[in-house]
Amino acid sequence: MKKGKETTIYDIARQLNISASTVSRALQDHPGVNKKTKKMIDDFVAQTSFRTNPFASNLRNKQTKTIGVLVHELNSNFITSVLAGIEKVTASEGFDIIIAHSSESGTREAANVKNLFNKRVDGLIASLSFDTSNLEHFQPFFDRGVPVLFFDRVEQDGHKTVVVIDNAKCGYIATQHLIEQGCKRIVHVTSSLNRNVYSQRYKGYRDALFDNGLAFEEDLLIVGDLTRKAGAEAALKILNMSPMPDGAFITNDFMAAVCMRALREKGVAIPNDIAIVGFNNDAIGELIEPALTTINYPGEDMGEIAARNLINHIKGIGNLEQTNTIIVRSGLVVRGSSVRTTPQTPD
Amino acid sequence: MKKGKETTIYDIARQLNISASTVSRALQDHPGVNKKTKKMIDDFVAQTSFRTNPFASNLRNKQTKTIGVLVHELNSNFITSVLAGIEKVTASEGFDIIIAHSSESGTREAANVKNLFNKRVDGLIASLSFDTSNLEHFQPFFDRGVPVLFFDRVEQDGHKTVVVIDNAKCGYIATQHLIEQGCKRIVHVTSSLNRNVYSQRYKGYRDALFDNGLAFEEDLLIVGDLTRKAGAEAALKILNMSPMPDGAFITNDFMAAVCMRALREKGVAIPNDIAIVGFNNDAIGELIEPALTTINYPGEDMGEIAARNLINHIKGIGNLEQTNTIIVRSGLVVRGSSVRTTPQTPD
Repeated sequence: MKKGKETTIYDIARQLNISASTVSRALQDHPGVNKKTKKMIDDFVAQTSFRTNPFASNLRNKQTKTIGVLVHELNSNFITSVLAGIEKVTASEGFDIIIAHSSESGTREAANVKNLFNKRVDGLIASLSFDTSNLEHFQPFFDRGVPVLFFDRVEQDGHKTVVVIDNAKCGYIATQHLIEQGCKRIVHVTSSLNRNVYSQRYKGYRDALFDNGLAFEEDLLIVGDLTRKAGAEAALKILNMSPMPDGAFITNDFMAAVCMRALREKGVAIPNDIAIVGFNNDAIGELIEPALTTINYPGEDMGEIAARNLINHIKGIGNLEQTNTIIVRSGLVVRGSSVRTTPQTPD
Repeated sequence: MKKGKETTIYDIARQLNISASTVSRALQDHPGVNKKTKKMIDDFVAQTSFRTNPFASNLRNKQTKTIGVLVHELNSNFITSVLAGIEKVTASEGFDIIIAHSSESGTREAANVKNLFNKRVDGLIASLSFDTSNLEHFQPFFDRGVPVLFFDRVEQDGHKTVVVIDNAKCGYIATQHLIEQGCKRIVHVTSSLNRNVYSQRYKGYRDALFDNGLAFEEDLLIVGDLTRKAGAEAALKILNMSPMPDGAFITNDFMAAVCMRALREKGVAIPNDIAIVGFNNDAIGELIEPALTTINYPGEDMGEIAARNLINHIKGIGNLEQTNTIIVRSGLVVRGSSVRTTPQTPD
């Protein structure tokens, strides 16, 4: 190999007579590469100047100055805030963005990933759909060294860079707040526990119950799909519970608003009969009555951080390989739906 | 020219030694083409087998099976409903979509149009930003015969296919409804009157006032930018009017909800002090109290119609050139914010 020219995975592949994607996988410790091949590559690398190339996207012929953004859903303030944050950075850096929408379908997500790859985006910012169970469909990006950064809905396998909030902590403080308001029987309304964000909020909820000596019952867990229908069904389930819960931690403001409205129509007083905490700090929370206590989740910051890190990587002034997890601050916003005017006396 | 092979604009251009884009413009009666050139092209066309090619996107090397969608804003139920409708059709037809977001900026819109063109989309579905004043940035699409279909926010110059609702009629029935509730002094809160949707709703509002013998006053028109801030400012303006208006037609549900909340906080009773009608039938309207009367605006249908017409054109089983305007049904949804429990007696 010529001196002064950095060794690429293609050089290694040519020298060892194997495919570039096998080299890429081996260097990423992908389980699909057999041990012998891996050792051969590792030995070769040890003898050469090779290092994981931070200017990975330059391996392709030319930059398109376009970032792909893959979202699980568009109809949420959170996602549009993230997009606003991404756009703020990409616009100032002269990158265009194109958005692909998976509508919570893993199949559509895979099709979108392929399409964005074919459109030769310089990098990808992605949040996974409900039923995405692995990252295989991103392999073309990984193989070609096109950087991918995940946010919010992620697979935390320890190999990819993710931008997230501390969902377990948020679940904990939401539940702890309800307990401090005197709630003893707290229902948890959430979505698919296969997704990190919901499983971790659930963990936080259970930990808070445990730390406060409150029992968890399976019946107190209501899993829906974040739709209006799911919100209305949650309200019905709550109304039919005996005794009725006196607190609800609902992991989505829209569902919380729908549920609250349905409960109020049945004469349930909020917060005194049941105190409610939502999640996301959507605009709707301040417009309903009583206003909704919620977890503030800084979408715009997340978008800015994601775009900034991705573009720095593309420009070679940062390296995503060095960063595993970026945790964005988040916190409780207390409003009328949870603050009891007549504090409950202990039993 | 060989027999059996359809004449294209490129054939004409070559024969006449002019550019293909000039041919394309001339055939579209574009005012920028001089009369002599136009006549030369028309004469030539009259002698040949040329006809406007409905398989226009085939003029490019190959289909990408991708539709571009250009939206002015993402953070609205209306737009996400349109996207859902588009996705329903494109998914079943095996087309991917990529979305570009102009954030109400004409400059960003132009950059996005260029980017989608470079990504070689097979067709484009677009809604214009606030400050877009012409369609020049779409010229590469027009020149290359890549079909573009506009929805909602459009330029109605009579040359392009548009999918819209009858905004003037909607403005009229919203205002008429308030008048029927006894309102005599109706404020109109809206957005940039440069955009067709707002100018036409405004026209409907004025026509309804006129037909009912009510005077229009300039002070009754409040123009904002659809944000939370604009909603709050509208409430302040309303509170400071003397006498205070007894009706408000607000062309966006989110702004209406913000305005209503601010008025209620100042002790204004809705609908009895002021009756309110919004626009869009966003999810928020059913969750606030009182629930919001609004214009239902079937986004999903609009998206389906737009995608269906565009794809039929691309597949050659329909021809957008034959269609000018597609008007989608819309109507008033009456809820608590406008229905007075104590009917007003006439003066």
